[in-house]
Amino acid sequence: MTVTTAVDLPSGTPARVPTPAPGDARLARLSLNQKTVDRWSLAEAVDACASHGLPAIGVWREPVAEVGLDTAVRMVQDAGLRVSSLCRGGFMTSPEAATRRERHDDNRRALDEAAALGAPCLVVVPGGLPHGDRDLRAARGRVADAVEALVPHALETGVRLAIEPMHPIFAADRGVVSTLDQALAIAEPLPQAAVGVVVDTFHVWWEPGVEEQIARAADRVASYQVCEWITPLPPDALLSRGMMGDGHIDFHHLTSCVSATGYRGDVEVEIFNADVWAADGHAVVDTLARRYVELVEPHL
Amino acid sequence: MTVTTAVDLPSGTPARVPTPAPGDARLARLSLNQKTVDRWSLAEAVDACASHGLPAIGVWREPVAEVGLDTAVRMVQDAGLRVSSLCRGGFMTSPEAATRRERHDDNRRALDEAAALGAPCLVVVPGGLPHGDRDLRAARGRVADAVEALVPHALETGVRLAIEPMHPIFAADRGVVSTLDQALAIAEPLPQAAVGVVVDTFHVWWEPGVEEQIARAADRVASYQVCEWITPLPPDALLSRGMMGDGHIDFHHLTSCVSATGYRGDVEVEIFNADVWAADGHAVVDTLARRYVELVEPHL
Repeated sequence: MTVTTAVDLPSGTPARVPTPAPGDARLARLSLNQKTVDRWSLAEAVDACASHGLPAIGVWREPVAEVGLDTAVRMVQDAGLRVSSLCRGGFMTSPEAATRRERHDDNRRALDEAAALGAPCLVVVPGGLPHGDRDLRAARGRVADAVEALVPHALETGVRLAIEPMHPIFAADRGVVSTLDQALAIAEPLPQAAVGVVVDTFHVWWEPGVEEQIARAADRVASYQVCEWITPLPPDALLSRGMMGDGHIDFHHLTSCVSATGYRGDVEVEIFNADVWAADGHAVVDTLARRYVELVEPHL
Repeated sequence: MTVTTAVDLPSGTPARVPTPAPGDARLARLSLNQKTVDRWSLAEAVDACASHGLPAIGVWREPVAEVGLDTAVRMVQDAGLRVSSLCRGGFMTSPEAATRRERHDDNRRALDEAAALGAPCLVVVPGGLPHGDRDLRAARGRVADAVEALVPHALETGVRLAIEPMHPIFAADRGVVSTLDQALAIAEPLPQAAVGVVVDTFHVWWEPGVEEQIARAADRVASYQVCEWITPLPPDALLSRGMMGDGHIDFHHLTSCVSATGYRGDVEVEIFNADVWAADGHAVVDTLARRYVELVEPHL
């Protein structure tokens, strides 16, 4: 029992529950998204999952590229890990034909990489407004078109495009799709096997009728990601996510909604936060495992 | 013509259009919200409106209280200004009966103050999640109840409650009503003379279907406020608003939508921004007048 000495990060409060040991059945669906331990290489993150008893990892393309795809595939297989998702494809808002073609080709390669890694989905970050462009509606339309164009390759690879609606704080510079409602409107006309959505608590917790939207998503939920909305918001909007339990999100409630859809996939913890990144990675994994078994897992 | 020497704040670029002179017909609906020149007293802000040729001012309760209501009324009347709105009432999310009663009484007083000042509306900031409370849906319901309870006094005073939907960046700590859609759902069952909504470009520019929501609002548009979404987002979320033209919002488009509803009221410029607050107030008023006649007024 490490509970008597462990401290939760980054809040620094004493742990309320013991760190679950490797093999604990409650960890059976917990996945470490690499961005939570941003300073680690893929090898370090894979090793940490294995040593802490996490059965899955959400990997990013850049650290995969650093070691090469074949090596990355071998690393996760050797460690006995599932890859819960590949981050990330998308960035589909450019109006320029050449750029759109480049992005399309790159997204096809991302689907191939996800297939090689055994990931069930590719997280699709829609992209922000092009420089100087203020037509948000048109940019959203271009995302829908670009997703549709990728459907044949998604079906060929067996990897789902997981559209990530992003908090409106990112509507200008990162993700023009702002709600589950919008993401589902893009996904629903397309084959369910090819296109789903990400439910990320940070992005959607505030959405009016989020419960109904998650229920509507049903089998379209391709990925469930958890992290926290904290106040005061950290100064860098890109690094403003918190550790579950340190903020305002009702994880019981949202997890119950996701669970009610029949979602049985992994649950990724993905935290972009300077304090989390500065901390010892193993202590971060300990903390997120505790918070997960306290706040999320009982409601799956 | 000051165009050759004037600099736009806070971007620091040379002015693209001359500063409109007092009496210019294009200023006929421009209102200075006091928060844009936060360091100024009410007297200073009133004087600046008069000297720069702005016919209206959006006043805040605190600076009014500093001089006393009667004095404030006399000041704006002597200067020949309209009061376009009183900021602010609201903060209605507490579940505790005593606090709710206090807030109700305070909001009644705010309506009285608005009536004395001749303001057509009281801006209603819904309030954030109570400390430790994660039930956003219930908090939103309490806002609806509290607005409804104020309807009789709004009708008595002839002052409209203007519900301000706030950007989801503030859903946790300031405003649980996140969209025009939600604000209208609260307003529509209540008398139109008593309850309207604020269309603030910063808060709603990203909203899916914002055009349809503004059209739906129709005569419920009680106030139109303009300020900008800029990136990178300034470090303090509360001071993250920008000068029109420095960011991503299509003011032509949103202004046309508001104008199409038949809205003929004043247009308030309300900018919470540390750089704007640090600048010379008169230079700020010059800049906002230029940006307004360039980006907003032609579409009214």
